[in-house]
Amino acid sequence: MVVANMKSRGLYGRKGLDLQERVIDINPPDEDHVIVKIHACGVCGTDLNFVRDWDAQHMALGHEIAAEVIETGKNVTSAKRGDKVIVEDCSMCGVCDDCKSGHPEYCRNMYTIEGQPGMGQYMSVRYNSLDKFDGLDYVSACLTEPLAVSLTAVLNAEIPLGGSVLVLGPGPLGLMAARLAKLRGAGFVAITGLPADNPRETARLALAERMGCDLVIQTGKQSVEDEIRARFPAGVDRVIVSSPPRSMYDAFKAIRFGGIITFFGLHFGGQNVIDLDVNDMIFRKITLRPTFAEPAINFPISIRLLRDGLIDAKSLVTHTFGFAGAKSVLAAAVDGSQPIIKAVMLPNG
Amino acid sequence: MVVANMKSRGLYGRKGLDLQERVIDINPPDEDHVIVKIHACGVCGTDLNFVRDWDAQHMALGHEIAAEVIETGKNVTSAKRGDKVIVEDCSMCGVCDDCKSGHPEYCRNMYTIEGQPGMGQYMSVRYNSLDKFDGLDYVSACLTEPLAVSLTAVLNAEIPLGGSVLVLGPGPLGLMAARLAKLRGAGFVAITGLPADNPRETARLALAERMGCDLVIQTGKQSVEDEIRARFPAGVDRVIVSSPPRSMYDAFKAIRFGGIITFFGLHFGGQNVIDLDVNDMIFRKITLRPTFAEPAINFPISIRLLRDGLIDAKSLVTHTFGFAGAKSVLAAAVDGSQPIIKAVMLPNG
Amino acid sequence: MVVANMKSRGLYGRKGLDLQERVIDINPPDEDHVIVKIHACGVCGTDLNFVRDWDAQHMALGHEIAAEVIETGKNVTSAKRGDKVIVEDCSMCGVCDDCKSGHPEYCRNMYTIEGQPGMGQYMSVRYNSLDKFDGLDYVSACLTEPLAVSLTAVLNAEIPLGGSVLVLGPGPLGLMAARLAKLRGAGFVAITGLPADNPRETARLALAERMGCDLVIQTGKQSVEDEIRARFPAGVDRVIVSSPPRSMYDAFKAIRFGGIITFFGLHFGGQNVIDLDVNDMIFRKITLRPTFAEPAINFPISIRLLRDGLIDAKSLVTHTFGFAGAKSVLAAAVDGSQPIIKAVMLPNG
Amino acid sequence: MVVANMKSRGLYGRKGLDLQERVIDINPPDEDHVIVKIHACGVCGTDLNFVRDWDAQHMALGHEIAAEVIETGKNVTSAKRGDKVIVEDCSMCGVCDDCKSGHPEYCRNMYTIEGQPGMGQYMSVRYNSLDKFDGLDYVSACLTEPLAVSLTAVLNAEIPLGGSVLVLGPGPLGLMAARLAKLRGAGFVAITGLPADNPRETARLALAERMGCDLVIQTGKQSVEDEIRARFPAGVDRVIVSSPPRSMYDAFKAIRFGGIITFFGLHFGGQNVIDLDVNDMIFRKITLRPTFAEPAINFPISIRLLRDGLIDAKSLVTHTFGFAGAKSVLAAAVDGSQPIIKAVMLPNG
Repeated sequence: MVVANMKSRGLYGRKGLDLQERVIDINPPDEDHVIVKIHACGVCGTDLNFVRDWDAQHMALGHEIAAEVIETGKNVTSAKRGDKVIVEDCSMCGVCDDCKSGHPEYCRNMYTIEGQPGMGQYMSVRYNSLDKFDGLDYVSACLTEPLAVSLTAVLNAEIPLGGSVLVLGPGPLGLMAARLAKLRGAGFVAITGLPADNPRETARLALAERMGCDLVIQTGKQSVEDEIRARFPAGVDRVIVSSPPRSMYDAFKAIRFGGIITFFGLHFGGQNVIDLDVNDMIFRKITLRPTFAEPAINFPISIRLLRDGLIDAKSLVTHTFGFAGAKSVLAAAVDGSQPIIKAVMLPNG
Repeated sequence: MVVANMKSRGLYGRKGLDLQERVIDINPPDEDHVIVKIHACGVCGTDLNFVRDWDAQHMALGHEIAAEVIETGKNVTSAKRGDKVIVEDCSMCGVCDDCKSGHPEYCRNMYTIEGQPGMGQYMSVRYNSLDKFDGLDYVSACLTEPLAVSLTAVLNAEIPLGGSVLVLGPGPLGLMAARLAKLRGAGFVAITGLPADNPRETARLALAERMGCDLVIQTGKQSVEDEIRARFPAGVDRVIVSSPPRSMYDAFKAIRFGGIITFFGLHFGGQNVIDLDVNDMIFRKITLRPTFAEPAINFPISIRLLRDGLIDAKSLVTHTFGFAGAKSVLAAAVDGSQPIIKAVMLPNG
Repeated sequence: MVVANMKSRGLYGRKGLDLQERVIDINPPDEDHVIVKIHACGVCGTDLNFVRDWDAQHMALGHEIAAEVIETGKNVTSAKRGDKVIVEDCSMCGVCDDCKSGHPEYCRNMYTIEGQPGMGQYMSVRYNSLDKFDGLDYVSACLTEPLAVSLTAVLNAEIPLGGSVLVLGPGPLGLMAARLAKLRGAGFVAITGLPADNPRETARLALAERMGCDLVIQTGKQSVEDEIRARFPAGVDRVIVSSPPRSMYDAFKAIRFGGIITFFGLHFGGQNVIDLDVNDMIFRKITLRPTFAEPAINFPISIRLLRDGLIDAKSLVTHTFGFAGAKSVLAAAVDGSQPIIKAVMLPNG
Repeated sequence: MVVANMKSRGLYGRKGLDLQERVIDINPPDEDHVIVKIHACGVCGTDLNFVRDWDAQHMALGHEIAAEVIETGKNVTSAKRGDKVIVEDCSMCGVCDDCKSGHPEYCRNMYTIEGQPGMGQYMSVRYNSLDKFDGLDYVSACLTEPLAVSLTAVLNAEIPLGGSVLVLGPGPLGLMAARLAKLRGAGFVAITGLPADNPRETARLALAERMGCDLVIQTGKQSVEDEIRARFPAGVDRVIVSSPPRSMYDAFKAIRFGGIITFFGLHFGGQNVIDLDVNDMIFRKITLRPTFAEPAINFPISIRLLRDGLIDAKSLVTHTFGFAGAKSVLAAAVDGSQPIIKAVMLPNG
């Protein structure tokens, strides 16, 4: 079946929750491309940044994509019509020195989704941007991307079996990091969050407990350092920072001698610089190991964890929505007025 | 420039030094393929096996290939006409779970050179099978593939700085392993070889010394165990086995408590099974770590080592030849009557 | 308090369940020694070997020791009267090149318990052979040593998160390995055992299931290879061999391309040699990594895992006994007539 | 032989090159101690800090100690009279959880030299603070400690074979790091130093070249970033910082995407805090891995590297002196008026 000149309706956004629907053409695939029908697309913090703060032109929304292959270019052998796939938003090139050396994480020639919104009906992508899955529904599957981000951080942290871990930030990435830390054998996992003063924060902290966190610290109301040092006078083995750069100060206060701090919390408003005490890092032998999950790293393993139920997607995805409900869900995700953990759009739902 | 219906003359072989020249068609490249002109192709032990022992149909010879791009398919952006390239005989797919996870060494969907002889004038290969190089002549460059095999073993061996290493087998792979071990910081490197009773073995052992081996052991005339234990009563830190499986017994005799034996020496004549004392491995904490360098692993770093002169290609390549000289060089490489270390064919020379 | 010329009653054994009680003198500690009162000592397979097969002089029994410090030599600062301690049967020297390099696992100058039975009332050991613990009863604590053996193997196996693991052998070590594999994040764990034809084997397989094993294979009745390949056509990621050397054949049949086999199952009756296909290891990139947990490695982490309940000691220790009950418990442990998983002696109970 | 109530003459210092000789008593060793005669003690940057800046009471000088055992306590079996030894200034305890887990680098209960000056005639230390050596003169041997510091940093940096390395700071530690990087297989090593405007800096930069550095950058006169980026547009693989914290800015400018910065340069005058751009670290995937070589780590391997000539002690030790010459040598080391690289005191010379 050739789908000629398909039309795809998709979502774009900018500051002030200024959403726009556009219809774009999806051309028939060239030899190497694949057309997919998007069944589920998660809302990422980046999307929320766009609709809250981005003041230039409208940006395509959505990159946590679970889809179905509907047409393949003539050279494509690794996927076929009907396959269930994750679409990577950013893919290793496979031919640079780093990819060929088993280090796709250093690839600088990545393939992208070329400005197409994941919060849209269809998409055309190169064949190598797909990760097939099975035994998993689309809504759960679209957690693959954020799970992979979180997983890359957790693996980078090299959590010692039975060790102690502090996760800063209770968003979906932080919550998954906490669960993954437990799954990897941590003996104790604490997580920090804002005070449970609105439905979103309340939901996050409640889920943290259901996911097995041994301690939930409400920053502002409680001292991270005090809570940790009361239980671990020497500090925790690992800190995973899923919150903005300034929270690194808490990481340094909580980490033990010889510990590792891994972090992936960016700040785009200029608060990205902290004071670093080099003597202290040396004397306390503290390693700083950032994580930036581009290109798509750890997608295959993330799919397996979701499929086998080791990560419980159902408890994370609290809301789904279509084009009609987009504005209200995104608004609530921004202002915290609903108990949203992860919201997922169903562009063809 | 479109090169339509090119003809390529190439070399095939079977038992009894039964060589055959054939002319094959090289079709214009499809979207993803590239046509290369082969400037140099090294003779591998596998090629010698074919012309000595292979008694079925003629096999295409040569897979250590340095070439020049002369035409590219329309979708190819990673190489262009005039580029100097290594052609991988076996390439990672780039899309399987293992490739996407940074483990191309576990890829099972590899691209090949599709039966074309590296000892031929031209070849058509998929774009992802190329590794570009510069600052290096073609003859030296064609050592990339065997160097990568050797390098993979040496890196697998995790040689401790200042440590002691025994290399079994003084063929090009073993000689390069010895040099690489030194380059990685080994404090002592020994190599074993057959007695210097013919020009080939004499040349190999002499080169071993020039390359910095601290000890050359002639098996048959000397006991590997005695020579090693005289210098290292507790045994050496690492053994790299570039000779047939039966030499593993020497590896076990020479290795120290807690050491690693890495090996890539196959036997195709049925002598591939050895007795393994499991108690001994446990009590002496000896790890067995094989190396099999498929798909092309460590080609980029191998190119850099050759380009920067850290591996001296000139001392390894002792003979070059064209179609006319092929039979006599291969014969000598088999019978040892010439001081051949590495022979390289110049198919367009 | 100086305990002068203490007497200690202890257990020795040889073939035919020939047990002997002896009373030995425990002299006052010299500067570096410590006298402990033994509260619990686990029965190891080695002890069972002695009372079943050992035909020379009686051997001291017991080396899985949880005890209380009752007197310390004058230079001892790292332990004091009343401390609860594990007594290592084999301790790193702390001064050799390997210990000083952070590799106590290569230490060859180990301290021992000097022939004293762990199944005895008191013992004098050097101060550095103690690992303090708290928040844990003595019976549970005496699992530290076997847990550490098992843990060392599991850590050596480098289990991938969400990966598949096969454990060969359902003794206490194998059962703990299975649990530890789950704890480290394995997605699937199978274990093999003899058919559940006697109370001991029935108890083991039942506990395997309660501990979370996804599959229990009864060797003899079922094919390990078939059961594994039915679920994992490509084989499992890791095999941990806690059974005799001959079971390595099953390990090779079940392991996937690129997998790791880690093993610690010895055979003392001469069946310690297997046939090893070197070609197969190379082509399938299979690593053999033995584990031998001397000197005491991973005791501190094992204590933490027991203390925090990550390993459930209560389900493993099925029987305790004193001097009076020793013979019948050891007999049953040998012949399988009782549902014994781990039996623990209480020498002062 | 019992050496009762020995007297030992030693050197102490404070600000303003205020040196003091004191004679202390060396009591007969208790059971665990050893008395050594110090044949060589290197001058460390810390010693120079004391005589330049330290304004409290006089500090004992010298901790890079090569000595001879002259008497041993009755329980000491690991050393005997006549042994040549390095005395560690800071030794692992061997009994804490970290030492027992093969991580002496996290030990917090270290043994010290108890305030005794290495720049003295004799010293009494616990038996476990000794590392025996042979085949090496005392003056060369006393480089063990600084070499180990440098080596720990180089090993932490995980230098890729054939990779590029920038070392900041050309003191003895930086010079040795540069040499070690080459020894570990770096393809390119650059080093920075102050302009060659005095004899000390001139000597350092000249030695850097003799030791094989591919590039010497004079800071102040040249831009580190420009010099590196001219050769490596993408930056170098690794930066080793042997200079004060502020030079970390150069490290960030020179490092490539995905690189590792390892550092051990402290500042005691309050300039130990730098601005750290967390976004930049994340986007560029840069790891910060400090090195602090306490307790004595890598002494055994450092001894081997010196003994085997892989590190050329002779080119590093430019000056030796006794009590009489101490003041003038230390003064010149501080003000740069002599071509001093490493000065070594011979307290019994």
